[in-house]
Amino acid sequence: MLKNDLFLRALKRQPCSRTPIWVMRQAGRYLPEYRAVREKTDFLTLCKTPELAAEVTIQPVDLMGVDAAIIFSDILVINEAMGMNVEIIETKGIKLSPVIRSQADIDKLIVPDIDEKLGYVMDALRLTKKELDNRVPLIGFSGAAWTLFTYAVEGGGSKNYAFAKKMMYREPRMAHQLLGKITETISAYLLKQVEAGADAIQIFDSWASALSEDDYREFALPYIRENVQAVKAKYPDIPVIVFSKDCNTMLSDIADTGCDAMGLGWGIDIAKARKELNDRVALQGNMDPTVLYGTPEKIRSEAAKILKQFGQHTATSGHVFNLGHGILPDVDPANLKLLVEFVKEESARYH
Amino acid sequence: MLKNDLFLRALKRQPCSRTPIWVMRQAGRYLPEYRAVREKTDFLTLCKTPELAAEVTIQPVDLMGVDAAIIFSDILVINEAMGMNVEIIETKGIKLSPVIRSQADIDKLIVPDIDEKLGYVMDALRLTKKELDNRVPLIGFSGAAWTLFTYAVEGGGSKNYAFAKKMMYREPRMAHQLLGKITETISAYLLKQVEAGADAIQIFDSWASALSEDDYREFALPYIRENVQAVKAKYPDIPVIVFSKDCNTMLSDIADTGCDAMGLGWGIDIAKARKELNDRVALQGNMDPTVLYGTPEKIRSEAAKILKQFGQHTATSGHVFNLGHGILPDVDPANLKLLVEFVKEESARYH
Repeated sequence: MLKNDLFLRALKRQPCSRTPIWVMRQAGRYLPEYRAVREKTDFLTLCKTPELAAEVTIQPVDLMGVDAAIIFSDILVINEAMGMNVEIIETKGIKLSPVIRSQADIDKLIVPDIDEKLGYVMDALRLTKKELDNRVPLIGFSGAAWTLFTYAVEGGGSKNYAFAKKMMYREPRMAHQLLGKITETISAYLLKQVEAGADAIQIFDSWASALSEDDYREFALPYIRENVQAVKAKYPDIPVIVFSKDCNTMLSDIADTGCDAMGLGWGIDIAKARKELNDRVALQGNMDPTVLYGTPEKIRSEAAKILKQFGQHTATSGHVFNLGHGILPDVDPANLKLLVEFVKEESARYH
Repeated sequence: MLKNDLFLRALKRQPCSRTPIWVMRQAGRYLPEYRAVREKTDFLTLCKTPELAAEVTIQPVDLMGVDAAIIFSDILVINEAMGMNVEIIETKGIKLSPVIRSQADIDKLIVPDIDEKLGYVMDALRLTKKELDNRVPLIGFSGAAWTLFTYAVEGGGSKNYAFAKKMMYREPRMAHQLLGKITETISAYLLKQVEAGADAIQIFDSWASALSEDDYREFALPYIRENVQAVKAKYPDIPVIVFSKDCNTMLSDIADTGCDAMGLGWGIDIAKARKELNDRVALQGNMDPTVLYGTPEKIRSEAAKILKQFGQHTATSGHVFNLGHGILPDVDPANLKLLVEFVKEESARYH
């Protein structure tokens, strides 16, 4: 039994005594303790070494007091497991090879056996789960198909997604085939993560806002829905969070995937999102990560504003406090700690 | 008298026989004729040489048949005129120095005499106006204060706007002072552009979507409103377009600046924007620039879709077809030509 299940209760829109908080990239470079581990090894090796992955996953629980842990990994492990070579140079860039741009390229990618190719993630989950000792829930995650598709087709990060869009606009059937293959891998991967101990799942569609609404409905949402439904069909009690960053005009469409909660970037007032969705999903977010560069007063006033914007809780509302994107590497950890403590204290009045 | 005033009529929401079209960065690197001029000189010298600026401004009118010309220039000429050194290496990057981060830095910036520091833009406008010979209207423009502020504080492009946000969150009065100084320059600059022959004005807030709604209302919109009002007070007949890219949850707030038209990125279905705004402003946009990488059929079907989404025109509606961002440098000019011709033909049915 979890000692602190506030995060899961909020995702399920069950009554909570206060608003739970975790932050994206909470196991990361802003923490000196993370940097000390990271110094010993490269980024992907850290992901692939369960003892180290578990250690950095738990650091923010110990040091910052967050209400959930998220397994330390990277969204690109899927691309790698499918047959691409992935290089991640933290702070520098990402390179995948070969790039996937033709039918032959797609045919060469495999839908991997998850235990064989990604067993290290399950090992890390099991170990973390054990070491967490039920203090807080553990989040498993995956990139969304569209985002992973852009990395495969572009061979790295991209400004305009020229190659990905060229495939979508010139060879849409090929694009859908690649998206389908990625989606199949994601679903299997998510199910395995739940079996290994993940208490909730987050799907990150980091590059969601690069698509028009209709393109998002054609090339992204059906695949997210497939992943969500795969998890919910087998594990109806495991909450799924969809983070389609900055898709603020499509909130209802995203809720229609059947997810339990939706992550928000800071571009939308959370009150507007709650009003539009009318508490049919929980909301996660949505403070601008750069607010953590501010003074303590600014951090507190901004957090108080977001709690107030979300407003009073009812029997069917759910809010998980988070940043609208990952915590930045040069933030002072004391500022995150201050935020966590403030949210825990200030939020009680709304419950 | 303008021979083709469709663009101005659409901005003023007056009846039109068809939907006018121009595209952002239409005078740019995708055109071999532009590259031929550009080879002879560097980017800023091109901006500062009225004969050359006029030549490339008119190229897309001659070659592509667009319904408006936009003066060839750069938003950073304001930063330069205020006392910063600006280097623009096309395709590479932008560097401004010194960076503006302290009160002393701000104090050193001047609110320039426009004729003295930016007279070359007025010369280019006058020359272009003459050479256009009233074929189509000529657009003058400026960056919005928030966007120019980020360049001043960051010293170039930025991913997270860390220094700009630090100033906003730690020294808000200083940030407002710098924004005010930039705004004063912008207003004077826009008025001079109208005097030199600009038939319409566009304000580009390229980095608008980096701010939360409340921050946008505090640090960006009041300054845009000031610029819009400065133009409208002196030249009520000159239409002003505000392009706060991807601020799709704040459409009404942007309309409240008093602008005549609003530019849209491709992240929102234009039908939603029209419905929310109820034709109180004209809309400009909003095709994903990467659609021009598509097949002719894809380009036509996407353009047809946007015209259809905007829908039937009434006595008070206005639509200017455009891309949701600048045309990309590696687009085949034939594809833009095809788009322009298609929009001209297909749009008539909606008027």
